Amino acid sequence: MYIEELAANLRNFEGVTRKKPIADIVSIFETVRSEYGEVIDDFGDDAAVIDIGTDDVILFAADAIWGKIVNKSPWWTGYTSVVVNVNDISAMGGRPLAMVNVMASSDLESTEEIMRGIRDGIKKFGVPMVGGHMHPDTPYNSLAVSIIGIAKKDCVIRSDSAKPGDVVIVAYDMDGRVGQNSPYSWDTTSFKEADVVRERFMVMQEIGEKKLVTAGKDISNPGTIGTLGMLCEVSRMGASVDLRKIPRPDDVDFEQWLKIYPATGYVVTAKEENASQCVEVFENAGLKAAIIGEINASQIIDIYDDSGKAIVFDLRNDTITGI
Amino acid sequence: MYIEELAANLRNFEGVTRKKPIADIVSIFETVRSEYGEVIDDFGDDAAVIDIGTDDVILFAADAIWGKIVNKSPWWTGYTSVVVNVNDISAMGGRPLAMVNVMASSDLESTEEIMRGIRDGIKKFGVPMVGGHMHPDTPYNSLAVSIIGIAKKDCVIRSDSAKPGDVVIVAYDMDGRVGQNSPYSWDTTSFKEADVVRERFMVMQEIGEKKLVTAGKDISNPGTIGTLGMLCEVSRMGASVDLRKIPRPDDVDFEQWLKIYPATGYVVTAKEENASQCVEVFENAGLKAAIIGEINASQIIDIYDDSGKAIVFDLRNDTITGI
Repeated sequence: MYIEELAANLRNFEGVTRKKPIADIVSIFETVRSEYGEVIDDFGDDAAVIDIGTDDVILFAADAIWGKIVNKSPWWTGYTSVVVNVNDISAMGGRPLAMVNVMASSDLESTEEIMRGIRDGIKKFGVPMVGGHMHPDTPYNSLAVSIIGIAKKDCVIRSDSAKPGDVVIVAYDMDGRVGQNSPYSWDTTSFKEADVVRERFMVMQEIGEKKLVTAGKDISNPGTIGTLGMLCEVSRMGASVDLRKIPRPDDVDFEQWLKIYPATGYVVTAKEENASQCVEVFENAGLKAAIIGEINASQIIDIYDDSGKAIVFDLRNDTITGI
Repeated sequence: MYIEELAANLRNFEGVTRKKPIADIVSIFETVRSEYGEVIDDFGDDAAVIDIGTDDVILFAADAIWGKIVNKSPWWTGYTSVVVNVNDISAMGGRPLAMVNVMASSDLESTEEIMRGIRDGIKKFGVPMVGGHMHPDTPYNSLAVSIIGIAKKDCVIRSDSAKPGDVVIVAYDMDGRVGQNSPYSWDTTSFKEADVVRERFMVMQEIGEKKLVTAGKDISNPGTIGTLGMLCEVSRMGASVDLRKIPRPDDVDFEQWLKIYPATGYVVTAKEENASQCVEVFENAGLKAAIIGEINASQIIDIYDDSGKAIVFDLRNDTITGI
């Protein structure tokens, strides 16, 4: 049956299953709390939230690019490292401040291409690279980038705060194309003017400041349903999703679309009375947004369409990140 | 002649020569400034300094461990990643707030050892790991850690602000031992109680708040003279160092000592009238400190002892980082 098979494919998608080791990392690290500042939120969200004793909080995240992509396209590796890091901050309603990087390379040509990609990302998003560390003598190429941002303390959009009865909204920049390096990447930025890109990715700041959502996350490697699953996991919630409501490009297979990292794509939850205004803010910024389902207390994420209903994640028994 | 040979060995030391690629990274990135916050200081210092519009600034740095050490001792890799990052913040007079990491590993045993090292570092220094990214499927092991800290804006200790006539002071925690993984590492922390370690590495915060120095830097892979060279390079200064004044352990070869990363070791510059108080603050925190030379405008770093004088770096013609 189609819907059962789709649910299984989404559950077993590599973009989702690669998230499992996170739980092990967290369990070994979670014993220590800061002596110096208050950590409000850490693993399990796009960025950690650090209270510095003012009305603003500092957001702090790190990301890296899959090894497969590093070797296939060094330029894209550098460029994407900026995109994913900026998304970690913007998804939480923050303004990105600066990035640092650690690069490892043995091969001058790849290094230069990675750096060109980073430089082009910096120019596109207007976020400076302020420091870093270079290993010039490794037998492999790799890139890790870390970012800080700032947000008003009471406007931060977290992942762990969805509530039963909230509606689920997704928003995508539909003006994109499947990336050359992976069927699951969607490039919405490299071919656009910087001002258009910046307006679209800063939409979550407006949504945070207007307090239109209860929770939210940028849609990343686990895809649309996988990212919603992660949001439900840390919120200890479930969700029911009407697949027919999900905006989709005409020329991309639907299962592929659900697995795609849409670059400029968000899943948020909102009180019903704020939902239409939230959709409107997304659409005014040039994204396509829609209400696709509802949060419930079941800890089960299911999908349905005309053909029936199927469970993607049962978080009473399974884990995605285990956080 | 001994002093000439020593100068050449310090100049050609791998800990120094590995710094050269930094210049290329900087030149490609330096075109863009932030749209969102003011970057006061970036590449060339231990941490970047970001103005967030309050009396405090955010410090931001990234570091990684040499590939050689990752494979030789995964525990030490994890532990040291915390030490070097905390040092980047403390060297600038800041308080560390939080760290994030990107880890890559194919091998479960190494991963667990790296994580144990990080966990032990976190416990020792009291700085939490608040997020990260894990590549579970790489053909190599690597670790990159990034850290943020906070400091009073007018108490930040920078590298680029040494002036002619300033005295050069070094300070080391002499209660250490040569690391098991490299003749050029000096472990001052793993065997000590957390409170002792924290008091010693936070000494620069007191020095910053008392405004006792004009510039400073933690002594890292380039060793004592190499680090002074980097400080002079970004300050556009020179320095003359009396080797006889440098505190040294009895049981370590002097050339080796000059190349060592002393873990808790700093080179600072101070106005002459503040020098003795600065030495006193270091000594009260349990470090051994001494005035070893003077800053001048020559852009030449030379060393001397009873046997003569020799030039280590001539920054009119050479570069260390090229920044």
